[in-house]
Amino acid sequence: MTPIGSEIERLIQLLSRLPGLGPRSARRAALVLLKKRDTLLEPLAAAMTGAAAAILTCETCGNLDTISPCAICADARRDGHVLCVVEDVADLWALERAGVFRGRYHVLGGALSALDGVTPEKLNIAALAGRAKNGVDEVILAMNATVEGQTTAHYLTDLLTGVKVTRLAHGVPVGGELDYLDEGTLNAAFKARRAL
Amino acid sequence: MTPIGSEIERLIQLLSRLPGLGPRSARRAALVLLKKRDTLLEPLAAAMTGAAAAILTCETCGNLDTISPCAICADARRDGHVLCVVEDVADLWALERAGVFRGRYHVLGGALSALDGVTPEKLNIAALAGRAKNGVDEVILAMNATVEGQTTAHYLTDLLTGVKVTRLAHGVPVGGELDYLDEGTLNAAFKARRAL
Repeated sequence: MTPIGSEIERLIQLLSRLPGLGPRSARRAALVLLKKRDTLLEPLAAAMTGAAAAILTCETCGNLDTISPCAICADARRDGHVLCVVEDVADLWALERAGVFRGRYHVLGGALSALDGVTPEKLNIAALAGRAKNGVDEVILAMNATVEGQTTAHYLTDLLTGVKVTRLAHGVPVGGELDYLDEGTLNAAFKARRAL
Repeated sequence: MTPIGSEIERLIQLLSRLPGLGPRSARRAALVLLKKRDTLLEPLAAAMTGAAAAILTCETCGNLDTISPCAICADARRDGHVLCVVEDVADLWALERAGVFRGRYHVLGGALSALDGVTPEKLNIAALAGRAKNGVDEVILAMNATVEGQTTAHYLTDLLTGVKVTRLAHGVPVGGELDYLDEGTLNAAFKARRAL
């Protein structure tokens, strides 16, 4: 028999499905939630219910927001001539945090992977081809530097004809130490070296 | 400006207050929740709302359950003559998972700590003294083997007169390698060695 009531058990079981939380940390999280009922459990439950009701997938770019088209697609100050293609909404968030890009995005919803059965039809690629033909000067492929990400980038480069296609630079990460970098990264950084 | 709508931002901010989730993993968790709206976000929100409404603190022992007295206190098959004192509900769960104890529990809600200002009045200690006088033969102190836990155990040993007070054994953890153990544990294991 378990000492834990079924309500708590269910809470732990669902929490353990979050990335970063195993069974043990899910139990700790459940206890913290139950101890901080007014300040954490109830606000979090309300925030989840609110998010479940309010959050939409942008029909233009695939971003998540409470409106569709999303705030980025609807923002007239952003440059509609440049499209940045990312695998995931998390990547879009990362680029926005860095504040390097003032154009619009296109979220694929994953990367091509023969192993996992992710074919082009399963990604938001058909819509990208359509958008790229519509007043877009440059498509920046900001895939992850993984096998899947680079496979996807190659596929998209072949697909997107009649528009300038670029990809992010490979090299030494800022703050990175050469000693800890893999050969592939060092190789790429050497090949793309620049005159000072 | 942030790319993330305020609903998602609030969800991330609350998730990051869970133990084991930092800002980065909270963002990942929020994205997974939003992607698995039907199978994870909504059930988890419902489980949290349900837990917030249903879970009580047992007025006898301090355990968390949907009933008070809790299922353990109400279970007539458990031995009411032996009380096991633990710091936290998590410790009670751990002992119940191990299935080693068939008596009743007493949850202190923490350990004494001068540094953190945890005085005896802030713990569930007064009720313990009362329970120990009421047909209890043995009080097992199952505090953590930390400075705070052992301070609490000493305090309780002085307080609980007229009843047999025991504590858990210290020694080599089952599966543990001597090489990786600290001197204190090895010392305790040597002192408490047993004839084969």
